Amino acid sequence: MNQLYSSKLLENAVSEFSKLPGIGKKTALRMALHLLKQDEDSVRQFGQAVIQLRSEVMYCKECHNLSDTEVCEICSSPGRDHSIVCVVETVRDVMSIENTMQYQGVYHVLGGVISPMDGIGPADLTIESLERKVAAGTVSEIILALSTTMEGDTTNFYIYRKVKHFPAVVSTLARGLAVGDELEYADQVTLGRSIINRMPFECTFNKK
Amino acid sequence: MNQLYSSKLLENAVSEFSKLPGIGKKTALRMALHLLKQDEDSVRQFGQAVIQLRSEVMYCKECHNLSDTEVCEICSSPGRDHSIVCVVETVRDVMSIENTMQYQGVYHVLGGVISPMDGIGPADLTIESLERKVAAGTVSEIILALSTTMEGDTTNFYIYRKVKHFPAVVSTLARGLAVGDELEYADQVTLGRSIINRMPFECTFNKK
Repeated sequence: MNQLYSSKLLENAVSEFSKLPGIGKKTALRMALHLLKQDEDSVRQFGQAVIQLRSEVMYCKECHNLSDTEVCEICSSPGRDHSIVCVVETVRDVMSIENTMQYQGVYHVLGGVISPMDGIGPADLTIESLERKVAAGTVSEIILALSTTMEGDTTNFYIYRKVKHFPAVVSTLARGLAVGDELEYADQVTLGRSIINRMPFECTFNKK
Repeated sequence: MNQLYSSKLLENAVSEFSKLPGIGKKTALRMALHLLKQDEDSVRQFGQAVIQLRSEVMYCKECHNLSDTEVCEICSSPGRDHSIVCVVETVRDVMSIENTMQYQGVYHVLGGVISPMDGIGPADLTIESLERKVAAGTVSEIILALSTTMEGDTTNFYIYRKVKHFPAVVSTLARGLAVGDELEYADQVTLGRSIINRMPFECTFNKK
């Protein structure tokens, strides 16, 4: 049954909130009523932050990451190794890798993976711009950091074929048991691959 | 650890979203990235709906319900029985009762319940305005529809003492087993009260 609202303004705000991912009518109402209790300035600030985000944010012309400037902070940083390019699906993956603080190269955001089921072909992604970057000759290593799904693997293979005649090394993220995993609960495919791709033992206690 | 954002605009929008109730940084980021994929007009519409809600919505001067006009639709409707006043805590309670389609009277939104722990006294609620309404002599019944908590009971009692010398009848919502409840899982207090307040059996099959 449809909720009856005593105010069109409230109904409108609730319907806008409920368009957000994972937000139903009840949560949307809770949010709208919450905002009604805040002072007018902070609600205006909220609304404007959202409008401004959509109208002013840019995509870095080098790596297609979200940025406030034409070239993002990572691409314009002299401290990063511009010869290593990590290829990721989305902006969120850049954040995840940045958060590890283990990577000093630059990124290339594809904007998705090749998925014929969803109607996404190579032309919908930024693969051509990646090819141009590699063709320019300044890239020494391409790290493919896509999801281990069928679509991710297809995209990996497509990119590999496009860049294999250039001198750059193509690598991929290590696959295996997650840190903290117990053997008993690891899935068979992961466990199987981690036996095949076993690596030399390193005593991590001596390392910093 | 703090998330690193490549864009201040994004960081700003995420921090605004995460001020909403029940929204953490991860969900806030998901919402912001979702909006980035929508077209600019619909994001502007979202932002403006929120700002407009806060700046333009009014509280009905009769019942303190949310309204787009000075007097809300319910209070200004000639089809409602203005002599029955249902006293509720919040705007949301009005919606819940309206949704049942079983009530034809009007409402009075208190704005909360008396709760010394949270520093809410009778003066912070709209009890005085309720008293004035009852004193005017047009009210024949007051239905107390507050939560069955300590605070709700206190507020019920406070209101009862304020209005008992007026001719209006004071009633409260029926308490008992919920429709569809099984005895086995009902809590003791509710079950106990439903025995004490047992009511004459009515054959509901014959009723429409």
